[in-house]
Amino acid sequence: MKKSLLLFVYGLLTLSFLLFLWQYGIRNSGEDGLGKPSDGLVGDVEEQYVMVTFQSNIDYWRPVMKGFEDAAAKLNVAVDFRGATQYDPIEQITVLEQVIARKPAGIAVTAIDPEKLNEAIGKAAKAGIPLVLFDSGAEGSGAQSFVGTDNYRAGAVAARELARRLSGRGTVAVITQPNQLNHRQRTEGFQDTIAKEFPGLSIVEVADGKGTIDASRQAAEDIVARHPELDGFFATQANGGVGIGQAMKKLKLPSRKIVIGFDTDKGTLDMVKDGTIDATLAQGTWNMGYWSLLGLFHLRHGIVQPSSEEKGGVHPLPPFIDTGITNVTQDNVELFYAR
Amino acid sequence: MKKSLLLFVYGLLTLSFLLFLWQYGIRNSGEDGLGKPSDGLVGDVEEQYVMVTFQSNIDYWRPVMKGFEDAAAKLNVAVDFRGATQYDPIEQITVLEQVIARKPAGIAVTAIDPEKLNEAIGKAAKAGIPLVLFDSGAEGSGAQSFVGTDNYRAGAVAARELARRLSGRGTVAVITQPNQLNHRQRTEGFQDTIAKEFPGLSIVEVADGKGTIDASRQAAEDIVARHPELDGFFATQANGGVGIGQAMKKLKLPSRKIVIGFDTDKGTLDMVKDGTIDATLAQGTWNMGYWSLLGLFHLRHGIVQPSSEEKGGVHPLPPFIDTGITNVTQDNVELFYAR
Repeated sequence: MKKSLLLFVYGLLTLSFLLFLWQYGIRNSGEDGLGKPSDGLVGDVEEQYVMVTFQSNIDYWRPVMKGFEDAAAKLNVAVDFRGATQYDPIEQITVLEQVIARKPAGIAVTAIDPEKLNEAIGKAAKAGIPLVLFDSGAEGSGAQSFVGTDNYRAGAVAARELARRLSGRGTVAVITQPNQLNHRQRTEGFQDTIAKEFPGLSIVEVADGKGTIDASRQAAEDIVARHPELDGFFATQANGGVGIGQAMKKLKLPSRKIVIGFDTDKGTLDMVKDGTIDATLAQGTWNMGYWSLLGLFHLRHGIVQPSSEEKGGVHPLPPFIDTGITNVTQDNVELFYAR
Repeated sequence: MKKSLLLFVYGLLTLSFLLFLWQYGIRNSGEDGLGKPSDGLVGDVEEQYVMVTFQSNIDYWRPVMKGFEDAAAKLNVAVDFRGATQYDPIEQITVLEQVIARKPAGIAVTAIDPEKLNEAIGKAAKAGIPLVLFDSGAEGSGAQSFVGTDNYRAGAVAARELARRLSGRGTVAVITQPNQLNHRQRTEGFQDTIAKEFPGLSIVEVADGKGTIDASRQAAEDIVARHPELDGFFATQANGGVGIGQAMKKLKLPSRKIVIGFDTDKGTLDMVKDGTIDATLAQGTWNMGYWSLLGLFHLRHGIVQPSSEEKGGVHPLPPFIDTGITNVTQDNVELFYAR
């Protein structure tokens, strides 16, 4: 009799404890007593989001990938990185189509070419896979958002920085990469701003630096040979700035020109530090990755503007998230090495 | 036999307790079995974010407030709404300063005036309170982001829609509200696009509709009296479009002009439906509220771009989240009544 009472008490204890465990689980599962959702924005580790780049090994993508990973860690989802190793649209289309075939939870793509990828991007939409573009967009592709620099505005900022350093007078040249949309927009913003705001400045040449240091150095040397009186350069791309910088190092002062570069790779930062490049524009690369994943997560989970599914309705996601630019000079260059 | 049962019960108790310890440890470490954080983006119900408007009773803010609330529900935080009841900068400054004194987790403000609020906005920064602007910005205010329409681009879209309907030829007028930054930008985008892309179109007047239907109707009637040959109007604001529409209703065809309105209040939608207004531009209002709160949450919780704390560093949040615009005509007007 006593033993069975003891057993009953033990049993009751165990039961109470199990009840407590169950309760504890409930309390932490994301519902409060009022039945309101309160578990936050959280996904499933089975949910995989893929980032697709080109020239996938360059350092430029590192902070972008870090932002994508950091967002995934916060949201408890998985990520994968794929990309064309070369600067080759055909290779990037192949990689993108392989990724679509795996039906991931969402895809973030940086477009090597503003038109050639549109068909492949359309396939993601048909397969119901959320897709956003980052860094370099593709107009009319049907992607649900573009997360990156306002490249037109970046060109305008470069024009104003160059004009300020030249007191609004002189001749300048641009070295760019004309087949990529972001570079076209930077050039256009630069040209329009010079034309509109600085009547004392004129652009004597816009050359193709082919995205490499060597071709850009050669282009810069050729331009200086044709226009020895030139006062400044704007490079819409990191290698362009370093190429111009190498050409400038050969010229002796006072022949040296003002150089505005782009991005914050080590080569560019070293030249900002030693004064070969006067200023460079840093992009919000970590934010490109972070906010791309956040956008894809919202599309995947349907946390979007009401009625967006319907034809003719509004944009489900903000169609453009401007990650900003920062002017980097000798004054703040040290801050950009660590990143 | 009974002793072994007792042993079994003891064993069960011990096991339960170990289970508890394991569970407790895991759940409170913010790590899942793989050592990754997995609790998602989630706040605390004690955390209160405040939205500050002006003309706080108008319907326009409803979807914006709904987006702010929906984001709060997802993130498990609280919201509050404050605002100047009138169209009065002094009243809005007073309200904003009262909100700052309460030290909320974050503040989203729509600026009635692009300069007058800057000092009060600066006080939030000094008090360490994250602040973003939405709908109508304030340049140079130091707010960490602007979430809203690219108003310059909206003006360009209106110009192209009007030009398309006039086959690129004729004279047009604008009715706007020149003291608010978003309206200035819409007017500028409209003017620049006409000047750049449509040499056959000219703008004969830009008038102040004072944000009311009555003043806008009067302005439209006066303009038509001075320019009876006028071909079209662009209103940068909802009441402006309705005012022009009322003036047009008095004119008999073929004297009626093409009218491009703004926003999707019931008055405007009814006039789009009956053909008095030819097209209106819908803004991503729900997204303004939703993404404002998401931005504030990221600032409050320090989930921002690395090194953003340091002077001269990059933008912690994307400095501009473009919530997009949609062209609303008779074809899709029904979709916008429900929202």
